[in-house]
Amino acid sequence: MQRAILAFSLFSASALASPFSPQTIEIAEQLQLQAMASDAAYQIVADLTTEIGPRLPGTVNDARAVAWAKARFEQMGFDKVYLEPVEVPHWERGGIAAKVTSPFPQPLLITALGNSVSTPPDGITAEIVRFANLAELEAAAAKSLDGKLAFIDHKMERSRDGRGYGPVVTARSKGASIAASKGAVGLMLRSVGTDSHRFAHTGVMRYAAGIAQVPAVTLSAPDADQLTRMLQRDPHVEVTLNVKNQAFPPKTSYNVIGEISGSSKADEIVLIGAHLDSWDEGTGALDDGAGVGIVVAAAKQIIDANLTPERTIRVVLFAAEEIGLVGAKAYRDAHQAELSNHYIAAEADFGAGPIYKIHSRVGEHALADFDAMAKQLESLGVKRGNNNSWGGPDMSVLPPLGVPVAGLALDGTDYFDYHHTPDDTLDKVPPAAIQQSSAVYTVFTWLMANSESNFRPIPIPTK
Amino acid sequence: MQRAILAFSLFSASALASPFSPQTIEIAEQLQLQAMASDAAYQIVADLTTEIGPRLPGTVNDARAVAWAKARFEQMGFDKVYLEPVEVPHWERGGIAAKVTSPFPQPLLITALGNSVSTPPDGITAEIVRFANLAELEAAAAKSLDGKLAFIDHKMERSRDGRGYGPVVTARSKGASIAASKGAVGLMLRSVGTDSHRFAHTGVMRYAAGIAQVPAVTLSAPDADQLTRMLQRDPHVEVTLNVKNQAFPPKTSYNVIGEISGSSKADEIVLIGAHLDSWDEGTGALDDGAGVGIVVAAAKQIIDANLTPERTIRVVLFAAEEIGLVGAKAYRDAHQAELSNHYIAAEADFGAGPIYKIHSRVGEHALADFDAMAKQLESLGVKRGNNNSWGGPDMSVLPPLGVPVAGLALDGTDYFDYHHTPDDTLDKVPPAAIQQSSAVYTVFTWLMANSESNFRPIPIPTK
Ligand SMILES: [Zn+2]
Ligand SMILES: [Zn+2]
Ligand SMILES: [Zn+2]
Ligand SMILES: [Zn+2]
Repeated sequence: MQRAILAFSLFSASALASPFSPQTIEIAEQLQLQAMASDAAYQIVADLTTEIGPRLPGTVNDARAVAWAKARFEQMGFDKVYLEPVEVPHWERGGIAAKVTSPFPQPLLITALGNSVSTPPDGITAEIVRFANLAELEAAAAKSLDGKLAFIDHKMERSRDGRGYGPVVTARSKGASIAASKGAVGLMLRSVGTDSHRFAHTGVMRYAAGIAQVPAVTLSAPDADQLTRMLQRDPHVEVTLNVKNQAFPPKTSYNVIGEISGSSKADEIVLIGAHLDSWDEGTGALDDGAGVGIVVAAAKQIIDANLTPERTIRVVLFAAEEIGLVGAKAYRDAHQAELSNHYIAAEADFGAGPIYKIHSRVGEHALADFDAMAKQLESLGVKRGNNNSWGGPDMSVLPPLGVPVAGLALDGTDYFDYHHTPDDTLDKVPPAAIQQSSAVYTVFTWLMANSESNFRPIPIPTK
Repeated sequence: MQRAILAFSLFSASALASPFSPQTIEIAEQLQLQAMASDAAYQIVADLTTEIGPRLPGTVNDARAVAWAKARFEQMGFDKVYLEPVEVPHWERGGIAAKVTSPFPQPLLITALGNSVSTPPDGITAEIVRFANLAELEAAAAKSLDGKLAFIDHKMERSRDGRGYGPVVTARSKGASIAASKGAVGLMLRSVGTDSHRFAHTGVMRYAAGIAQVPAVTLSAPDADQLTRMLQRDPHVEVTLNVKNQAFPPKTSYNVIGEISGSSKADEIVLIGAHLDSWDEGTGALDDGAGVGIVVAAAKQIIDANLTPERTIRVVLFAAEEIGLVGAKAYRDAHQAELSNHYIAAEADFGAGPIYKIHSRVGEHALADFDAMAKQLESLGVKRGNNNSWGGPDMSVLPPLGVPVAGLALDGTDYFDYHHTPDDTLDKVPPAAIQQSSAVYTVFTWLMANSESNFRPIPIPTK
């Protein structure tokens, strides 16, 4: 089996004028076999989610996660392990309750969006007004929501690549201020998610300057459907909402960094990452424990094989992704002088996988070289994608500064069933999927650390 | 299509020396077509779960459900509609919280079992001791749990007929007192359920006389797995539990009864039923809104077809099934003098279906007649079952008093994914399944109301 794969790839590599030496390819294939026989990625997620659990930025558990990751990195045998401070916002969820008071009294299952203010202690009671989507709310007349609760009932579509997220998530981030600008006393949003379970999906929201800050909550899909059925029976549906959240002064958290030092090109960096923080209601298994497991286990395969790459391999576990890429921006700023030495960067933050495609953002002149790398991943079931990648949420701060990125596309068909809910727990991580994903990262990382390609300059994205 | 079915059944009926007249069969087949073209059962569940929602015995919503059902029956055109009072226990859930305090601090998702007492206001903090099942707990030495929380981690097996429920549910009903008898300060039970979502399954529990009453809660499956993983890493896991429930004086609720009066055998009763109450966290869609929809829509088909059965068809929506068959026992006692006139009884209380088998408890001499009835259901996909039926939870009080029963077996493969959780909502009711189930009840009810069989005496069950 090993020999057959080797023979095939040597042939295809030479046919493509490979940017990889035969020895690099041979090691990549040995690493692939090693990774596909390893449960390291799954075990890392199991340990992180069990021993730490939820890890919202600024909380005690966030600090525990940083200490856990640093200790893990040291124990794994990285050449360098260090922390870089990140000032993170600190918001915590308190109690929450909602009920329909009229005409069909019953409780509702909701959760607060991150950053949401509280209601007054006795809650607010108001009639709801339904909007099919954010555009409908935006089209509402000024003052038309005076004293009302805006209810946005936009269903997210399921897809492998998560394309259903974009069209609905703006209502989460901006809906409360838009509602308030029409006079609403609060926002009730159908969860940004694809499940039909009684879980409300949280996520970060922002208040626009100069507009009243009103509580912003999400409903589980069954609860949103329930409200819609009620409105079909009676246009006057009244809800009581009680939300108690707390904003604290910022705290210092950390990006946790581990390096495998390079040899001949030690100053060039192959950057792989994931985010260490998570929302507070689940244990952050798919988001982004899985990403942590995938990239950390990829480095572990290389360390365990006693290999020295030509370039330095740097694993970064970012702080506070969930509340605005805070750790990523801190990394970008702290490493500004060094960004021109970032050879390529990639982040795993879309569940456990498997990885089915590899996108890129590299110079047009280097596409053949990237294709050759992608070819090497074919035996793992990975196809070549497009050249429009942003590298993942945290890495997305880098391409505007010229850093080449790769997008290893994780199969996210079920991702938004669990995303930002209490149900994001270890049992949702398929061991075989995360094993494949980590194997892909292992091979990718090794090839990138030893490639003779030059991916710069890249097409600089604008958005 | 209609003609083909008719021709076939006339043939098979005559071959079996049918207890049904050709006219009875012909009407049954017309009713079957009518029911299979109707969404009445689904609409009834939609209305009940939307307009009432949860309906725990003794609560405001329980009373609203009774009024709703009575009005619905009257609007449907039953010949008689009446309420029979039932004194029901009244317990309500308050706030609940649990967390691991050491060595891996994080919240746990739990719910209280019905009847559970509260903790002291500040909660209880104690080490947990894991038992694989109730037998292991029973085998624990006296005082061995002094000051500890007993954690029973028994997994329920999935099956179509719910056979996995029996082996685990005793731990729910009796576990707290058994734990307390060994000194435990509380019971934490892995949910009696087959899902792996972050829902804790509630259900009724009882305290044994003369033993300290300790709080009894269930954990979602992912939380139970999490505790087990923690114990594998550290045998000393400490949990804080805070439970606030309230017991109130009993209230009067009602069995809601609707009748289609019989003609020549009006004093004989074909009894079909379901229970109207539900647990408080979901909207009681599968348990037992679906049963309500199935049996009420079955009667509706007969009423809408302007048919008069020979026997009286009585639909009973029982009160307070969830907390101990309270309405069923009240029915049994109130109708004692009339029970010898109960021709046959059947209850739908296992989700939306489809119905795949029909069991019975009839006299041995009448098995061929019952088989002939079952034969008539074959075109709906129903097979003949055994003669050991209890008729369903509420109906189970009747066979010991000689009443023949039928068991129309609903496919419960997914039932315990949702059973007694917040997730038991309308979206879990498959419209096609409940349509078939209600069609089966329609045909069954019509045939039983016009059969020439005599099912008595039955083999009296003992248990
Ligand atoms: Zn993420
Ligand atoms: Zn996220
Ligand atoms: Zn039930
Ligand atoms: Zn039940």
